[in-house]
Amino acid sequence: MDFSPSERSLDLAQRVRAFIDAEIEPAERVMAADVAARRAAGEDPWPAHPLIAELQAKAREQGLWNLFLPAGHEGPYAVQFGTDGGSGLSNAEYAPIAEQMGRSFSAPLVFNCNAPDTGNMEVLLKYGSDEQKADWLEPLLDGRIRSAFLMTEPGVASSDATNMEATAVIDGDEVVLNGRKWWSTGVGNPDCKVAIFMGVTDPEASRHSRHSMVLVPFDHPGVKVERMLSAFGQHDEPIGHGEVSLTDVRLPVTNIIAGPGRAFEIAQGRLGPGRVHHCMRLVGLAERALEMACERATTRTAFGKPLANLGGNRERLAHARIAINQARLLVHHAAWKLDTVGSLGAMSEVSEIKVAVPQMACDVIDMAIQLHGGAGMSEDFPLSAAYANARSLRLADGPDEVHLGVIAKLLLHPYAEKASRA
Amino acid sequence: MDFSPSERSLDLAQRVRAFIDAEIEPAERVMAADVAARRAAGEDPWPAHPLIAELQAKAREQGLWNLFLPAGHEGPYAVQFGTDGGSGLSNAEYAPIAEQMGRSFSAPLVFNCNAPDTGNMEVLLKYGSDEQKADWLEPLLDGRIRSAFLMTEPGVASSDATNMEATAVIDGDEVVLNGRKWWSTGVGNPDCKVAIFMGVTDPEASRHSRHSMVLVPFDHPGVKVERMLSAFGQHDEPIGHGEVSLTDVRLPVTNIIAGPGRAFEIAQGRLGPGRVHHCMRLVGLAERALEMACERATTRTAFGKPLANLGGNRERLAHARIAINQARLLVHHAAWKLDTVGSLGAMSEVSEIKVAVPQMACDVIDMAIQLHGGAGMSEDFPLSAAYANARSLRLADGPDEVHLGVIAKLLLHPYAEKASRA
Amino acid sequence: MDFSPSERSLDLAQRVRAFIDAEIEPAERVMAADVAARRAAGEDPWPAHPLIAELQAKAREQGLWNLFLPAGHEGPYAVQFGTDGGSGLSNAEYAPIAEQMGRSFSAPLVFNCNAPDTGNMEVLLKYGSDEQKADWLEPLLDGRIRSAFLMTEPGVASSDATNMEATAVIDGDEVVLNGRKWWSTGVGNPDCKVAIFMGVTDPEASRHSRHSMVLVPFDHPGVKVERMLSAFGQHDEPIGHGEVSLTDVRLPVTNIIAGPGRAFEIAQGRLGPGRVHHCMRLVGLAERALEMACERATTRTAFGKPLANLGGNRERLAHARIAINQARLLVHHAAWKLDTVGSLGAMSEVSEIKVAVPQMACDVIDMAIQLHGGAGMSEDFPLSAAYANARSLRLADGPDEVHLGVIAKLLLHPYAEKASRA
Amino acid sequence: MDFSPSERSLDLAQRVRAFIDAEIEPAERVMAADVAARRAAGEDPWPAHPLIAELQAKAREQGLWNLFLPAGHEGPYAVQFGTDGGSGLSNAEYAPIAEQMGRSFSAPLVFNCNAPDTGNMEVLLKYGSDEQKADWLEPLLDGRIRSAFLMTEPGVASSDATNMEATAVIDGDEVVLNGRKWWSTGVGNPDCKVAIFMGVTDPEASRHSRHSMVLVPFDHPGVKVERMLSAFGQHDEPIGHGEVSLTDVRLPVTNIIAGPGRAFEIAQGRLGPGRVHHCMRLVGLAERALEMACERATTRTAFGKPLANLGGNRERLAHARIAINQARLLVHHAAWKLDTVGSLGAMSEVSEIKVAVPQMACDVIDMAIQLHGGAGMSEDFPLSAAYANARSLRLADGPDEVHLGVIAKLLLHPYAEKASRA
Repeated sequence: MDFSPSERSLDLAQRVRAFIDAEIEPAERVMAADVAARRAAGEDPWPAHPLIAELQAKAREQGLWNLFLPAGHEGPYAVQFGTDGGSGLSNAEYAPIAEQMGRSFSAPLVFNCNAPDTGNMEVLLKYGSDEQKADWLEPLLDGRIRSAFLMTEPGVASSDATNMEATAVIDGDEVVLNGRKWWSTGVGNPDCKVAIFMGVTDPEASRHSRHSMVLVPFDHPGVKVERMLSAFGQHDEPIGHGEVSLTDVRLPVTNIIAGPGRAFEIAQGRLGPGRVHHCMRLVGLAERALEMACERATTRTAFGKPLANLGGNRERLAHARIAINQARLLVHHAAWKLDTVGSLGAMSEVSEIKVAVPQMACDVIDMAIQLHGGAGMSEDFPLSAAYANARSLRLADGPDEVHLGVIAKLLLHPYAEKASRA
Repeated sequence: MDFSPSERSLDLAQRVRAFIDAEIEPAERVMAADVAARRAAGEDPWPAHPLIAELQAKAREQGLWNLFLPAGHEGPYAVQFGTDGGSGLSNAEYAPIAEQMGRSFSAPLVFNCNAPDTGNMEVLLKYGSDEQKADWLEPLLDGRIRSAFLMTEPGVASSDATNMEATAVIDGDEVVLNGRKWWSTGVGNPDCKVAIFMGVTDPEASRHSRHSMVLVPFDHPGVKVERMLSAFGQHDEPIGHGEVSLTDVRLPVTNIIAGPGRAFEIAQGRLGPGRVHHCMRLVGLAERALEMACERATTRTAFGKPLANLGGNRERLAHARIAINQARLLVHHAAWKLDTVGSLGAMSEVSEIKVAVPQMACDVIDMAIQLHGGAGMSEDFPLSAAYANARSLRLADGPDEVHLGVIAKLLLHPYAEKASRA
Repeated sequence: MDFSPSERSLDLAQRVRAFIDAEIEPAERVMAADVAARRAAGEDPWPAHPLIAELQAKAREQGLWNLFLPAGHEGPYAVQFGTDGGSGLSNAEYAPIAEQMGRSFSAPLVFNCNAPDTGNMEVLLKYGSDEQKADWLEPLLDGRIRSAFLMTEPGVASSDATNMEATAVIDGDEVVLNGRKWWSTGVGNPDCKVAIFMGVTDPEASRHSRHSMVLVPFDHPGVKVERMLSAFGQHDEPIGHGEVSLTDVRLPVTNIIAGPGRAFEIAQGRLGPGRVHHCMRLVGLAERALEMACERATTRTAFGKPLANLGGNRERLAHARIAINQARLLVHHAAWKLDTVGSLGAMSEVSEIKVAVPQMACDVIDMAIQLHGGAGMSEDFPLSAAYANARSLRLADGPDEVHLGVIAKLLLHPYAEKASRA
Repeated sequence: MDFSPSERSLDLAQRVRAFIDAEIEPAERVMAADVAARRAAGEDPWPAHPLIAELQAKAREQGLWNLFLPAGHEGPYAVQFGTDGGSGLSNAEYAPIAEQMGRSFSAPLVFNCNAPDTGNMEVLLKYGSDEQKADWLEPLLDGRIRSAFLMTEPGVASSDATNMEATAVIDGDEVVLNGRKWWSTGVGNPDCKVAIFMGVTDPEASRHSRHSMVLVPFDHPGVKVERMLSAFGQHDEPIGHGEVSLTDVRLPVTNIIAGPGRAFEIAQGRLGPGRVHHCMRLVGLAERALEMACERATTRTAFGKPLANLGGNRERLAHARIAINQARLLVHHAAWKLDTVGSLGAMSEVSEIKVAVPQMACDVIDMAIQLHGGAGMSEDFPLSAAYANARSLRLADGPDEVHLGVIAKLLLHPYAEKASRA
């Protein structure tokens, strides 16, 4: 056992952290104020602030770009973007870097490492045709455009993917998309130029071969952002989450990724690393909340003492210290399992982090809010937005309950087998 | 022991509930959409929607007006407004009515029973001079104006009231107010015409005789709403919570309530019933969240079953059922103690509900959100706003930790006495 | 709403408490030491200590006898024992008395109010034939004998009563009992002279008409106490819990209570009050644990301060204060519901207390143990035995999970109805 | 990062596990029955069962002996016993082996790896004089004798070591011991021949230089085992925990370890690895409880389904899976920190596991008990004894609260420094 990060992982994590502290955090305050002013004035809050592009350029210059890109890919894009920052880090190596990015809401975007673009790029790299790669992967890796992933639906319990009602019907050389999706992250941003849409192609096929993934140019007729949603009162500009309708969207069948009926197969490979990223970012967010709590506890005074010396505050801080450390190790371990035995072998581990980490982050952030008093729930501190972020991850990418079911199924499998033989 | 409500309490609670269901809920949807549209267009979202006044008129006609007003007051206003709806209910009788009002965010306003107006009216009724009553109590009871309470400060830990920095200095016939307050509920509303301000008058006096409460006409020079705050992303129009600065606000000393140095004494009497109201409203809010959860659990299907039949959902619903019932009984009991032994004798009970009920409400609402999936965190359901409301009550009116301290102090008092004698 | 106990309830509760403090607690220490010595010497620890009989005589003299006996019974025994202490208290009136009895492990026995004798007496009073009453009810009410209730079985999940394997087969004028039961409380005591046995009579009958309850003289051939069980290391002398086998136990059919197939009906009526008693005793036990915790917190010193002033200890004590108060109110309310609407109408309330109270008691006692350090887990304090008692009540009389299921079913019923109509 | 165990760690863990399954578990059932019979007959239950010696011989033959002995020691004993099984494993390498030993109560004794002998041997190896090593270390490593550690006292809060009242006064060439200790593990065993006693030598010295550790031959006049204690009803034969008085025990000053006043220094080094051992054993115990729960959940039926398919049982099993995995990783990481940066650098990590792991084990075991119904609390399954074991570790070796204080202090240190400079 060796818990040290690799040299390059450590180096990149430190440089990412330094960049966030020096460049992103100050810019974030400016951007937040500007977005608030735009909203208050009834102006469009969605276009990304010009500071984002400036920060992206600086980050790219320093080689802090597309760090999420995993090793193991071949072909022109892997190579080309490898020299441009595509680093081929293992999941375990990327994890500490993602933790640092989680400290800030803008950092993932600045480093071209934000969801759902990362997952979409991975899908294209692994399953995309040459043409699909040229059209969409290249500009995504270059940061010129952004993308969305259209999966969850408002009308059904999307925790059960077989409930999906949207369709991707093949009609000769075309595929015709219909349906309504929501919680489509990124569709608020005017730079969002493409989406990966998931829909039913063949309802008669076996359970996991019914659905296709289709690349949808976002300005195509029939695609409409019906509205932007808030989650726990947060709009998360300039990324945002929207409700999107697709009405008779006709596209060439070549827009289907990897061929009809392969959506589940593609989704499976996408989800493991994506969940590791999400969870590591939440570890970073929780760590930052704990830092803020410690800062507050030692500088704010009540009843003649710093808050740290009142009641159970120290115990709460200590419990948060333990909880974050446990969660970080669990994610590191899951990342290492993904690296060593693959998605299928790490299925329980990935579901375990998806259950454990968002709840941990909610708890730690909630504690930090409480220590900050009224300020903690206001927009003066990033804590209530952090809470909203962590809380939404108990639902996004599969609710806790679905992941608990997966864990239990895998855990009980040998016992159930044995019992059925008895 | 008899757990039945009094006949008039039951009757009023049922009528309030019927009014909410029939009149307020449909109107709320319209109002919420209108406020959202106003915000989106950069218009002022703060003036109360005209539907509020219509609903108020209807409620008043039906005698559902000022029901919070406690028995035991004498003088013209008690009498006059007694006939106008002032009902002289005991705290225990009002509790089930407040529960019903808690189901809706607008209901308290519609029935002229919303904080901080209720507390301010009680203070004026009990401690106000005739002139103060004529100027401010009468229009408040009549619903023509609204009011604010300026106590919490941004610069210090306000959980310890002796930290207060705002001043109310007596200068001849005048009192001069300076300071900065925040989480001043109601100041967003243009109908807010008066505030009760709390500040230090005599820093040399004994700990609980230093502060005064002063009536401040809200349009007085030197009073400025610096900004409106959001709590967990919610602005709570048309009431809202603001940050207010007071700069050399000179007022006649007759604006001091009950005389200089009596703020703590006044606050004490105000807080017991106010906390019962808050807590009962949260019980009602939690009950509504549970109803929504039950509705969702029986109508939404995943993996071939209604959600109610999946995993631990039934257990969670059952735990919520228990938690709400326990909390309701605890508040009813505290209200009965307030009625029978007064604020001082019910001090532990009031702090107990203040700790137990907001946390219970957070837990129940959070469960309901989770059962609603992504919809639960959106603005399509009132659940995330309900969560924000319940969560903020773990800080407002004294954070949990301060109330736990009060409970422990009272609990340990006889033991500590005994130990100190040993 | 009126939370005051009735005058006689208050009076009896106070007298019971005084008796426990003055008479039982000192005796308990002697008895515990004697039982430990008997065990250590390999002697039979099961016969009740002679002090018990002395205490019983005193209690009876003071009218503190059979207080559990509910109002509403008619006939000779109700009358006769009415004058002998049978008090006809309502459930709500008995609740505060049961709370006091819960402070001590011996008190229920001393006051002839211990399970399962209370339930057995109620069953006989309500369903027993005259002969059954003369033979068993009279000596039980008189405290000359004790009894057992044989229901739970080792071989099956007894949480589902339809799993029951024991049989009570009618063979002409006789009923023949076979089966193995465990957690049969009271069978360790040599005074245990009768048991109520539950077994399947007609496996073809409808689900709730298959089982019969049969009175079994405990010295009858074929009845064998296989062993005494410990629960969390406690043997609970002189009552204890045993495993009992019944092998071809032939009894007259007149030993069946109320006729064949009526066991479920009888059980239903027995369980409501019994659960109220259990839960109120646990409230009393938790209250005593909290008292001990307060005592310890103010008299024990570490790091220069009484434990009460260290870390989160005060908050834990305050949370315990809240938890006990909530639980007490929930049980009082359930008792009042039993009194006012009967067992069926109070089904959810009874299940709610059965879930909430044992867990609350475990939590409070565990906290008290922790505050006592190593002493808390030793036999020097009654805390670890109290924990075992509270913990076992999360299983006895239906595990938490079964009661949660009942609560959820009743809660969801109207929603499920509505959904099925839609 | 690399989460794989070293080859020898993996090999030894597998062999230890196989030995436990094949040899120890069957023997344990025999031994438990024999001890119960001895107790019931009033015979001495304390001498170790002859099977223990047989198992020890077998284990030693297979090289599964003294595996706890850390690398890095020099001198004759390290060398000599190195060849005899002293393996020089790192803490991280020993951790997975300790986990396996934790599955069984007897295993640590069988492998000569049980507390407090392990800690005592480490102390002697590191701080003992040649004579002390010859007299006590050699027979301990050889398993011919056992030992005790006399630290905790009944009269004071021993969580604060400066409360200690026992004395080790130097009188010329002798040191005179007086005091009363309890929770002295191992003193029930007749093979216990030596104890390490901690007492105050110089009350005027600086806080951490007052105490000495002294080797006490256990048959020395003045040493008396006053009684054996039960913890949560468990006596833990043949090790046990006792209360010991020392009255004017005169020993040569050469019995002091490392010289007067060095007790704290010695204790510090002893505690880190000891806590890792305890915690890893609890991880193993929790894992076994989870296995039993899975077994039960798939083989026991209620309401027509295996328990695994009822209510929240699967979610509880999944949560247990997560909790154990998190805890294991936390201990592995702490062990690795001990190996790489030493006791001082790993102080927070060691306290973190001491808080997290016993509570986790309590929760998992409690869940397993609940799934087993009444059987779970009986002596038919090792679960209630396992619970007692885990629960007592929330107090032994420092209560949770003390460790939380250590964690918070280390966490807040930089913030407090910064605040004090401001």
